[in-house]
Amino acid sequence: MKGKVYLVGAGPGDPELLTLKAARLLRTADAVLHDELVTPAILRLANPAAQLHQVGKRCGSKRITQEEINFLMVGLASAGLQVVRLKGGDPLIFGRAGEEIEALRWAGIPYEIVPGVTAALGAAAGAGIPLTHRRGPAAVVFVTGHRAASNEEADWRTFVRGGATLVVYMPGRNLGEITRRLRNAGLSGETPCAVVSRATTADQQLHVSTVDELPAAPPLAAPALLIVGEVVRLAATQGECFMTPALDQVLLQATDGKYGELAS
Amino acid sequence: MKGKVYLVGAGPGDPELLTLKAARLLRTADAVLHDELVTPAILRLANPAAQLHQVGKRCGSKRITQEEINFLMVGLASAGLQVVRLKGGDPLIFGRAGEEIEALRWAGIPYEIVPGVTAALGAAAGAGIPLTHRRGPAAVVFVTGHRAASNEEADWRTFVRGGATLVVYMPGRNLGEITRRLRNAGLSGETPCAVVSRATTADQQLHVSTVDELPAAPPLAAPALLIVGEVVRLAATQGECFMTPALDQVLLQATDGKYGELAS
Repeated sequence: MKGKVYLVGAGPGDPELLTLKAARLLRTADAVLHDELVTPAILRLANPAAQLHQVGKRCGSKRITQEEINFLMVGLASAGLQVVRLKGGDPLIFGRAGEEIEALRWAGIPYEIVPGVTAALGAAAGAGIPLTHRRGPAAVVFVTGHRAASNEEADWRTFVRGGATLVVYMPGRNLGEITRRLRNAGLSGETPCAVVSRATTADQQLHVSTVDELPAAPPLAAPALLIVGEVVRLAATQGECFMTPALDQVLLQATDGKYGELAS
Repeated sequence: MKGKVYLVGAGPGDPELLTLKAARLLRTADAVLHDELVTPAILRLANPAAQLHQVGKRCGSKRITQEEINFLMVGLASAGLQVVRLKGGDPLIFGRAGEEIEALRWAGIPYEIVPGVTAALGAAAGAGIPLTHRRGPAAVVFVTGHRAASNEEADWRTFVRGGATLVVYMPGRNLGEITRRLRNAGLSGETPCAVVSRATTADQQLHVSTVDELPAAPPLAAPALLIVGEVVRLAATQGECFMTPALDQVLLQATDGKYGELAS
């Protein structure tokens, strides 16, 4: 009997942000292959009899290759096991699920994808930042600060020109480099941005600044995420109202003066 | 005693794709204000004693304004109730939560944002399409086909040039208009795209075509979502492997021939 592989999103951090389906599959899994970002609190929801395999790839010092993960996943399912491949956030956003899906199709293993709350949504919720706004940005872009060296960087310039909210996954520790890329892309140094660290967990930290001031941000624990755009002005600060006149000004410009009518 | 408002994402359709937290809050809510997209199966998870208010705004024939929703939400919480404001997908992506947050802050009502699985992730999971790919797109853009008339359309041209996967929320019934916008933005008519209707539910339908052929797509039930980009070639077709040589070709070009090395 062939097993099955479930590619499952574990959400942004808070175990309560798992989906009901993810929790059910964890409770009944025979084996769980999980990334480093998946916390012990989430793994405690797994079937106590399940094999747990930590298959995270540490940045810089890879302990296990993608090919080895694919091989293990296919092998366990071929042995008849119900396998949960648990990834932080959502599996189809910067999760390399594409490669795992190809491996499963190649091997003829039944699989199912269970979406999760991607990190950007967790960070936005934790910081109180709407990623789109009826009177502001009509689009949101997810990019990654860290890419496989063999791959070209996405051209941030094009996204920045579109006026979208930009969310940078894995901005890394070199925020000076991120500022350089954002400035090179044509963004004003005054553009507001927020680093959200360990979003939705008890350790969540939020640092709001501007693009130019970003390199002076205190080092925040990984996983962290960067949100860039005028909507950052709406971030909740110590639970207080934070609707600044500046945002109204920005929205007024963005809507050719129509915001005044809308707001009135 | 003041109540509290929870702005909660209901996920893409399947009730099992609610988060554990959303399900808990529904079970204990005093009042639930929900959009039209939230299905009866999800509402059955709510506390039977809770007031249910359908506050959906039908496209074209608005029955309730955003201001009325804000007023109701603030009023119920001021009366001491625990209010769940339940939105399809995630509240901070095209959910107009920004306006509701502003109203809650203005009124001094405690609130909390509970992220959900946004529609794009549900559609991608249902169709087996990775939105980013290590050997392909390094970015994904969410835009909406339908915007408040008073607002400018996002400039799709800029996003298309960045080589990102494009996800169009609420593409509407006029797919000819969407094709026109995509072509005007500079996309090739041969670019693959997929309409995913009622993703993650038992009624899910998937139609894969190209940008030029999109207007000939059969009418699919709302809510629907459009995914545009080379990754659509990876869509699962009737549960079968669907890795075409064409994609390899595309990836080979996108990586300046480096894909060959990676794949070997």
